[in-house]
Amino acid sequence: MKITAVDPFYLRMPDITTAADGTQDTLLVRVRTDAGFEGWGECDASPLVSLAVYCCPMSHGNIINIRTSLIGETLESPDDVVRLSEKTLRNGLDIQQIEHAYSGAEIALWDLIGQKLERPVYRLLAEMSGTSDTAHPKLPYASVLFGDTPEETYRIAVGLREQGYRAAKFGWGPMGKFGEVNDIALVRAAREGIGTEARIMIDAGVVWGTDHETAYQRAEAFAQFSPTWLEEPLSPDAVDAYGALTQKHPSVPVAAGEGSNTYRMAEDLIVHGGIRFVQIDAGRIGGIMPSFQVRQLAEQHGIQYVNHTFKSHLSLAAALHVFATNPDFSLLEYPAAGSALSQRLIVEPFPVASDGMVRVKELPGLGVRVDTAAIRPYLASVRIEVGTDTVFEQGSL
Amino acid sequence: MKITAVDPFYLRMPDITTAADGTQDTLLVRVRTDAGFEGWGECDASPLVSLAVYCCPMSHGNIINIRTSLIGETLESPDDVVRLSEKTLRNGLDIQQIEHAYSGAEIALWDLIGQKLERPVYRLLAEMSGTSDTAHPKLPYASVLFGDTPEETYRIAVGLREQGYRAAKFGWGPMGKFGEVNDIALVRAAREGIGTEARIMIDAGVVWGTDHETAYQRAEAFAQFSPTWLEEPLSPDAVDAYGALTQKHPSVPVAAGEGSNTYRMAEDLIVHGGIRFVQIDAGRIGGIMPSFQVRQLAEQHGIQYVNHTFKSHLSLAAALHVFATNPDFSLLEYPAAGSALSQRLIVEPFPVASDGMVRVKELPGLGVRVDTAAIRPYLASVRIEVGTDTVFEQGSL
Repeated sequence: MKITAVDPFYLRMPDITTAADGTQDTLLVRVRTDAGFEGWGECDASPLVSLAVYCCPMSHGNIINIRTSLIGETLESPDDVVRLSEKTLRNGLDIQQIEHAYSGAEIALWDLIGQKLERPVYRLLAEMSGTSDTAHPKLPYASVLFGDTPEETYRIAVGLREQGYRAAKFGWGPMGKFGEVNDIALVRAAREGIGTEARIMIDAGVVWGTDHETAYQRAEAFAQFSPTWLEEPLSPDAVDAYGALTQKHPSVPVAAGEGSNTYRMAEDLIVHGGIRFVQIDAGRIGGIMPSFQVRQLAEQHGIQYVNHTFKSHLSLAAALHVFATNPDFSLLEYPAAGSALSQRLIVEPFPVASDGMVRVKELPGLGVRVDTAAIRPYLASVRIEVGTDTVFEQGSL
Repeated sequence: MKITAVDPFYLRMPDITTAADGTQDTLLVRVRTDAGFEGWGECDASPLVSLAVYCCPMSHGNIINIRTSLIGETLESPDDVVRLSEKTLRNGLDIQQIEHAYSGAEIALWDLIGQKLERPVYRLLAEMSGTSDTAHPKLPYASVLFGDTPEETYRIAVGLREQGYRAAKFGWGPMGKFGEVNDIALVRAAREGIGTEARIMIDAGVVWGTDHETAYQRAEAFAQFSPTWLEEPLSPDAVDAYGALTQKHPSVPVAAGEGSNTYRMAEDLIVHGGIRFVQIDAGRIGGIMPSFQVRQLAEQHGIQYVNHTFKSHLSLAAALHVFATNPDFSLLEYPAAGSALSQRLIVEPFPVASDGMVRVKELPGLGVRVDTAAIRPYLASVRIEVGTDTVFEQGSL
């Protein structure tokens, strides 16, 4: 089949705030073929900047937009997805945003080829890599922010326990901003509120920058509350500081990686940063295949792969296919709340089963369906003119 | 003084081709203050994608555009430039294109503060770092492409000798595409054409991907023609392959780094790739300060820093200030030809002096002046609408 259309859609809530909530807007990408199939993907990135990568005028042979690279191309097998990714990334070699933008299209190509071959994406990946094609359930963890105070954090944690969560990640807010005593009180409150049975994770939101000494002290101080990991204590680029931190073997394992815009950034953090959990967003790193390659690298290094997902369940579907077949990678970042846009985006979101677990869908492609009628009210129609040319005019959803 | 306006301008030639000529279009950034000064910078990046980073609607606290971060801010000293860079990059943490886009604004801020303090930018950098503030001349090298055949390459090299060039870089074209015999014949022709006195550099244009064995064989085979370096034999992200190549100590030193979109990418190539020349584009890596930090890292590692500049002499000015004060870093990539747009952009381009050298300008700021009248015909006016909002409307040049 041939690719006939590649359409990005910028969707957003009526009011956007500075809150650390990645579901306030999104960029969806729809790819259509002459065989009647259509595939969908979602980017975790600035919608307008990424959309520009689909339509920017050519600058020279290394700045060619994604639509130009894909439209008219043949898509028959997973090998074609790999080939088209190589072509698109080579054509966009000098576009820094290329991975963020292409992620949506790459995921859509997998969705398409899975539909055509009537196989879930995770099985296609298993075949390509010659590994097990048995999917395993994942333990979802809720992502919440710390309350402004330990008391508020305690109430939030109690609420999660009452909702039945067996794992929860508490993120930044006051963490790291008011000294060690307050930091410890926050983690204590999270643990006491959710109970001793549940897993907790601590997300420091890059608050200590390059200060690996403080990060180490906090990891040691938090160990009494048995968190599964301490996430992003340092800046994404501070790989040497991560290395200095992990060489001390802190009692709480270090997690990082959501800021990996390329495979190399993840590899750098694993090999030189010494992290124990690598967190990859398929909607940023260039899609499903580079995420799968990081999963394989994690397997080689004996560390844990975890998804980073703070968008809709379309992104969750892509994330799940990447590591569904590895039973040792058992944790799943699970977007439980999020904006109305995010919650309505997919016809049937992933349920948490009665055993508390989430499973990949045994359906062709990604296995999820975009609810175009439900999200149409959120479409922010985009029009871009350069000189006398209209380089982008919104397609219909 | 306060920043009152931040205006990107997309300029381009009437016809853009896939030729490897980065001067076919450009993105200029003008920053104005209430003190009447205006500063300019140039990005080496997709103009439309980078322009979108100046005006994209907020997505959350980590996706805030450059204009929002800068307008209304105070600018009194070099420390303010550093502070505003930290703010802008933190606000744009989840915008992959942030460094490419911000480069133009950062360079413009240095131009402004230099004008205000009546000092050339290189002196401000010397003061901040406590290093020598004496500028040294650089030996410019011409960047040309290999001819399609050894015979054509020979003619090109003879032409360069006749123009008086004492150094020239020959780039990709047929290199690496027709086997070892042809590759060697191309380099032999370049050397024989330009003569034994001149320096030659070989730019392989990432042709061998991750194949460090072939890259090593070519480096050894080219050694008989004494090239100063072999540039980008491998893909920008193939740091392990660079490491494998350089651990064999090839007879021709390896150069790379133009694809460094962040300081970490350059650091990674130096520390783990083992390169001997690091080539930095201030119009990509986030401006003058991160380039200066790579220069300092190169000094610590005892390797050579070289600019990468394939835009106008506005970019050349920014590049020169970064390493003017280090006499050991004596080579300068010098855009000699390029499009009419590129050649007309600056009122007085940098001349090659009678001693064959190029010198930084002893004038406040960058020391160059944009010829707005000359480039106005090349302005591609941009208009971007998102929903009912016009998020970008072209300012007047």
